[in-house]
Amino acid sequence: MTSASVARVDRERRILDAAAELFRERGFHGAGMDELGTRAGLSGPALYRVFGGKSEILAALFNEAMDELVGATAPLLADPEADLRRLVHHHVRFTIDHRALVSVYQREDRSLVDPWRKEFDRRRRRYVERWERAVARAAPAAAPTAVAAATQGCLGAVFSLAYWPGRTLRAPGSDELAERFVLLGFGALGIALIDQGP
Amino acid sequence: MTSASVARVDRERRILDAAAELFRERGFHGAGMDELGTRAGLSGPALYRVFGGKSEILAALFNEAMDELVGATAPLLADPEADLRRLVHHHVRFTIDHRALVSVYQREDRSLVDPWRKEFDRRRRRYVERWERAVARAAPAAAPTAVAAATQGCLGAVFSLAYWPGRTLRAPGSDELAERFVLLGFGALGIALIDQGP
Repeated sequence: MTSASVARVDRERRILDAAAELFRERGFHGAGMDELGTRAGLSGPALYRVFGGKSEILAALFNEAMDELVGATAPLLADPEADLRRLVHHHVRFTIDHRALVSVYQREDRSLVDPWRKEFDRRRRRYVERWERAVARAAPAAAPTAVAAATQGCLGAVFSLAYWPGRTLRAPGSDELAERFVLLGFGALGIALIDQGP
Repeated sequence: MTSASVARVDRERRILDAAAELFRERGFHGAGMDELGTRAGLSGPALYRVFGGKSEILAALFNEAMDELVGATAPLLADPEADLRRLVHHHVRFTIDHRALVSVYQREDRSLVDPWRKEFDRRRRRYVERWERAVARAAPAAAPTAVAAATQGCLGAVFSLAYWPGRTLRAPGSDELAERFVLLGFGALGIALIDQGP
């Protein structure tokens, strides 16, 4: 990359990181482009040279989250149960490491406008289907409706990490406990992804 | 009650039900008082005779959800495990029966303004503490941090029912599966609230 394109990528990164934090704090509708510029250390005109507006920034955040989440749903391990454990672990880590992004992704989907909204809804449907396939591989005897319900329960518990009270999230072992909670929850499909232990 | 106060309670109910639906669809900031009046079957002036404005309506919805949720956390059964099962069952039913209300409760807390916001935050902290006490009673050997994490995982999975895709939520048995998922998840605290079954 040229130094100009490196600088552009760097500016994009700063804007997106600042936007995720700002949208989480104020909500998309409560956030102003002026404050976003200040937080990203850019003037208004410099901000608009990178993104056409707030909607475009929100769409970029959604696509970024979706790229990472969809990517993780590609089957990686031959053992279906190990692969589902890997997928849960990935989503727990991703949510903890990107709380602001996941929070925006969870709460602001109605703020997304077309053409981005339509494309995002389509991507999200495919993403859920891929999750359901990963769950079905690990629980081949479970009914498709049960697989779909367990998938939603799992995603609900995992993504809720983005809103956990700080003291609970920061307590050592909370991430592992969240993961164990979800893996044991899949027992509702008649499978044992981990030992319950003592 | 006099017939005038009956009529007022009825108007309040219509406004709050219409507001929960409208805020869920459009988001609080995207919802207009005009459309709310139309949906509730009331003129603008009639609407303002009942509530001072959109913020007051949002606060009323939050208090309504919190009243119901807090109420359920009062210990009811002598057996702590049975009481936790009862509490989970209550929240699953409440979420499914009041999806719009729970969705607003989950997503619009940043839209709440003072004085309501401050009071609501206080109530929500007490509510979480009461949940944690119910969990700790059923898992007396678990560390408080583990109890707090399992409580958040449970609430995340249960409240996610408000956003499940319609086809998944409507599938027969989905509610029971969500409940089993959560009850088995509490196994992460070393307790068995239900048998895993086959």
